[in-house]
Amino acid sequence: MSTETLNGVSVTTRANVYFDGRCVSHTVAFADGTKKSVGVILPATLTFNTGAPEVMECVAGSCEYKLAGSGEWLKSSAGQKFSVPGNSSFEIRVAEAYHYICHFG
Amino acid sequence: MSTETLNGVSVTTRANVYFDGRCVSHTVAFADGTKKSVGVILPATLTFNTGAPEVMECVAGSCEYKLAGSGEWLKSSAGQKFSVPGNSSFEIRVAEAYHYICHFG
Repeated sequence: MSTETLNGVSVTTRANVYFDGRCVSHTVAFADGTKKSVGVILPATLTFNTGAPEVMECVAGSCEYKLAGSGEWLKSSAGQKFSVPGNSSFEIRVAEAYHYICHFG
Repeated sequence: MSTETLNGVSVTTRANVYFDGRCVSHTVAFADGTKKSVGVILPATLTFNTGAPEVMECVAGSCEYKLAGSGEWLKSSAGQKFSVPGNSSFEIRVAEAYHYICHFG
């Protein structure tokens, strides 16, 4: 089951816009200081670099992703997650909109 | 001064995507049930229709807008707001990203 809302949070009103708008997210902060982002990737094939480790949780739509060092494209759909190590990268290809929560750390 | 965060809210994780992604927003709900959206419009000229009256608050970037029945394009920049009547429309043109909070009602 996918996470429909994040509750009790502060939202940064200014969006994060990446790749000419193919990826748009908003940052949310929890009372304990934890930050996540909620975003959408529109049809594109993109490469993202990580600082901290990330867990990408799909809340609607789907994507295919390939972690650095892997030759394999894997699918992730609503309700599914995948983990990306820190200081690494992943490729993602989206044929329909991929709506996600990015969990850091 | 523009509103940098919305606090104590629930965020709907699935984004609202309009005009092939030229406008992307996320819906936020306050404890009292009030809903707003935080979003960004990327370079484009778009026409939006309103149901409820809306107040568009710019939090970063700028736009020009023209209300239905007006011949005049007006500029709105960070920290500024404009009001749109219900059951009406407005045109908006954006040369850089226009980050906004949409207040309903």
